[in-house]
Amino acid sequence: MVNVTKTFLPPLEEYQNLLKKIWENEWLTNRGQFTLELEEKLKIYLGLDNILITNNGTIPLQIALKLLGNNGEIITTPFSYVATTSSIIWENCKPIFVDINEDFLTIDETKIENAITPNTTAILATHVFGNPCHIEEIEKIAKKHKLYIIYDAAHCFGVKYKNQSIFKYGTISTCSFHATKIFHTGEGGAIISNDKELTKKIYYSHNFGHDGPLNFHGLGINAKISELQSAMGITVLNHIDTILKKRKEVVDYYNTNLNLNKLKIIKIRENTEWNYSYYPIILSSENKLLEVQKELNIHNIFPRRYFYPSLNTIKYVNGEKMPISESISSRVLCLPLYAGIDSSDLKKIVSIVNKTIC
Amino acid sequence: MVNVTKTFLPPLEEYQNLLKKIWENEWLTNRGQFTLELEEKLKIYLGLDNILITNNGTIPLQIALKLLGNNGEIITTPFSYVATTSSIIWENCKPIFVDINEDFLTIDETKIENAITPNTTAILATHVFGNPCHIEEIEKIAKKHKLYIIYDAAHCFGVKYKNQSIFKYGTISTCSFHATKIFHTGEGGAIISNDKELTKKIYYSHNFGHDGPLNFHGLGINAKISELQSAMGITVLNHIDTILKKRKEVVDYYNTNLNLNKLKIIKIRENTEWNYSYYPIILSSENKLLEVQKELNIHNIFPRRYFYPSLNTIKYVNGEKMPISESISSRVLCLPLYAGIDSSDLKKIVSIVNKTIC
Repeated sequence: MVNVTKTFLPPLEEYQNLLKKIWENEWLTNRGQFTLELEEKLKIYLGLDNILITNNGTIPLQIALKLLGNNGEIITTPFSYVATTSSIIWENCKPIFVDINEDFLTIDETKIENAITPNTTAILATHVFGNPCHIEEIEKIAKKHKLYIIYDAAHCFGVKYKNQSIFKYGTISTCSFHATKIFHTGEGGAIISNDKELTKKIYYSHNFGHDGPLNFHGLGINAKISELQSAMGITVLNHIDTILKKRKEVVDYYNTNLNLNKLKIIKIRENTEWNYSYYPIILSSENKLLEVQKELNIHNIFPRRYFYPSLNTIKYVNGEKMPISESISSRVLCLPLYAGIDSSDLKKIVSIVNKTIC
Repeated sequence: MVNVTKTFLPPLEEYQNLLKKIWENEWLTNRGQFTLELEEKLKIYLGLDNILITNNGTIPLQIALKLLGNNGEIITTPFSYVATTSSIIWENCKPIFVDINEDFLTIDETKIENAITPNTTAILATHVFGNPCHIEEIEKIAKKHKLYIIYDAAHCFGVKYKNQSIFKYGTISTCSFHATKIFHTGEGGAIISNDKELTKKIYYSHNFGHDGPLNFHGLGINAKISELQSAMGITVLNHIDTILKKRKEVVDYYNTNLNLNKLKIIKIRENTEWNYSYYPIILSSENKLLEVQKELNIHNIFPRRYFYPSLNTIKYVNGEKMPISESISSRVLCLPLYAGIDSSDLKKIVSIVNKTIC
């Protein structure tokens, strides 16, 4: 069986070596040795001044919205994983959708200003499949209208834009370290802020607002990651170069061998060092997609309809029509992509897709 | 050094054996084998119909409040860990404090009705240190005023009231499996509902509302626990009888040897099988507490001021005066209590406390 993704697991011995230290330390959470060590290693690897790792990739969105959203309207994209929208609603803000650019698949920056009202407090945009939004234009709009920018960078581990980490843009960026991601901690995530005062607030917020055991700085929640997860991150990080190299090989193979005259792939923005996180193909119609999916399934290959559905169409969300996002969502299929996928499987996938779209 | 608590760690080999299976399964989260297995084992051990385990003990409170709080007023106790109050505020409800009973340390049920208004939606009460609230009286009030009951049962693993699990009372009970708890998963928690329809909603809520990969039942969040944590739970559960037995021995030692004429201890409610989760002593004054704490610290013994402060006094909470809770909070000290504490340390603790309170 070939799934859309497969969790990278480091050699068991490497993880077990760190486990021994956890047993020696007798310390399993609340910013233990490995959590601190992983943060330091990630700062170096990604070239960041700060990063706070958390128990998953959604809680950083919640913290960001609690600190910056102020119960207001949040301009956002309908083409993302559900967490982007559900966090807005969960945190008592209102999602205001803006349709996407059909090539880059990111929020259409030219349509943002139209959606701004006196109640708008922030823009929450997703760097879709690791592909950066139009950062300069969004910054300009945010500055003009005094809005915060939150980037859902769940897919962006290792992505660089204009020679620096993509996490360095926006007021806050969030990332996911879920098991299906390039870099992972089983479950996990991170929050990165580019504002010193805000960085402090985020830190307090992630541990109940504690300022020492007896005092409280302000409102908080539990976003702490366990040492079991951080140790996983450390061992995965040791292999990140190999992971990225192998994923690039798969992407190169698809790019070279798929019939790109008959299907569309994502256009990566200029000045981007991409991370080969997903391989979405956009078919000519939903029926064609279902046909391709069915053929692959017959051969025990399981791509994923992702992102589907367009978030504005979810029942409890009930947003305005977003024609481009709805159209793309109905036709996009992510092909299997992971370090270590068999070349014979890749061949089979390409052959089935090419045959079906002809 | 003797701390107030010490994380119980099973033999490393036991955990490593489960790890091997995780590596075989290549499955790290999203309700993997060990998460399902742990839930089944906990249902049997605790005698429950349902339990959903989560990534920590706070997210169950958030889910409960999102489903039952309805942005209303929540009657709650000021004598609890900060998560009880902060979850209310985080979930956009308003905490209305009711003072505590000075013997049981739980919410004073005789004062609840006075605090109910047309905006009240639920009662969120804590079974303090595993000591049950006055369950029958609270049920009567809730029924009369059509309110939901959420029990913060963070400390209650293994507690029975009237011959059944304490989790079987209330609309929803929540528990913490934090590393400092009797039973733990490093970080973790659980939510238990006694309503079938609600149980389904909770299940959906804990995984983004997913009803299959492409559909959504409603609003949700990420409360998923990783397999690394669930495997820890399974190995700890294998030792739970020993853990409880050893903790009981410590409690018995304190009960027998502390000078109980000069200090107060918690009164466990009738019909309770307690779990020996904490050993709080209530000194005659805050000065006396500071004196005791200082003497213990000198000998490298670190009790914990817990719960402190009374939650109504936290700056961002700014609740009404709660004389009993504030008084108890200023005078309560939890003594070291864990499986495996040295008997020589216990002797020293008792001797220092007895000497200082004389």
